[in-house]
Amino acid sequence: MALSMYQASVPVFQRMLGALDKILDKAAAYAEERKIDPAVLIGARLYPDMFPLSRQVQIASDHAKGASARLAGVAVPNFEDTEKTFPELKARIGKTLSFIGTLNPTQIDGSEARDISLKGGPREPSFKGQDYLLFFALPNFYFHTTTALGILRHNGVGIGKLDFLGAA
Amino acid sequence: MALSMYQASVPVFQRMLGALDKILDKAAAYAEERKIDPAVLIGARLYPDMFPLSRQVQIASDHAKGASARLAGVAVPNFEDTEKTFPELKARIGKTLSFIGTLNPTQIDGSEARDISLKGGPREPSFKGQDYLLFFALPNFYFHTTTALGILRHNGVGIGKLDFLGAA
Repeated sequence: MALSMYQASVPVFQRMLGALDKILDKAAAYAEERKIDPAVLIGARLYPDMFPLSRQVQIASDHAKGASARLAGVAVPNFEDTEKTFPELKARIGKTLSFIGTLNPTQIDGSEARDISLKGGPREPSFKGQDYLLFFALPNFYFHTTTALGILRHNGVGIGKLDFLGAA
Repeated sequence: MALSMYQASVPVFQRMLGALDKILDKAAAYAEERKIDPAVLIGARLYPDMFPLSRQVQIASDHAKGASARLAGVAVPNFEDTEKTFPELKARIGKTLSFIGTLNPTQIDGSEARDISLKGGPREPSFKGQDYLLFFALPNFYFHTTTALGILRHNGVGIGKLDFLGAA
């Protein structure tokens, strides 16, 4: 079967968010074992002007739900960015997975040339669906999931590439 | 035009490797400006058992050339991992781009069900082409390009998301 816009989006987000959820479990267990306040890991950054772990997870969620919704032509669900604990970040991933799981291949397939406009920020970039997915949504999604893992690795959590790939 | 295996691979690697090349320019300029030995940045890691910047760039190159070649059904070119300077790392990116630029869409399109076996490591995973691209090659490629940027950000280089996306 030919590669499709659905196959290149929703199942990828599902695999990687499932992996991120398990990575957060390992981070929470590490904090408990080492008597580290979980808030320290959740607020950790690779550099002072980079986002902390919590925001990395929120933005990964935003790109997954945003891309899936926009390619399907449905409204992007609005999640408030209030998560401050590992259970709350896992719940954010859970509701992202719940939402994208409601979308069918027939809604997303054929969206290669769909006009996508991003509103709300200082810039309002517009794309065709395929370029939006390949050159904006997926790179951004991977940037924030990888950076979440990098923050945890930098703080000593024993996770690796197989965790990231969802193969651990 | 429908999304294809070529569109989801070679142009993505080209965009991101082009961006990484410019990021290395900014890192080299930062080292010169701050009188930092470039070898310090090239050997920098986010954690002692993680790979340094040089190896992140080499592995990103490996996934780009490996995926493009395997999906096209041609031999993967072997590059020795000897790069120790910014010009050498940029040359590694350059020869990766040169190689993948030789591949045509007709060689890669239709490779969704092609059998891909990875040899050489302790594990020898095998995939169908589409799963190999979406769940192995692209996540690995993004993991190492993002981690390269994370290492440089962590060391104070003034680069950001737009540099990563190739939009800066």
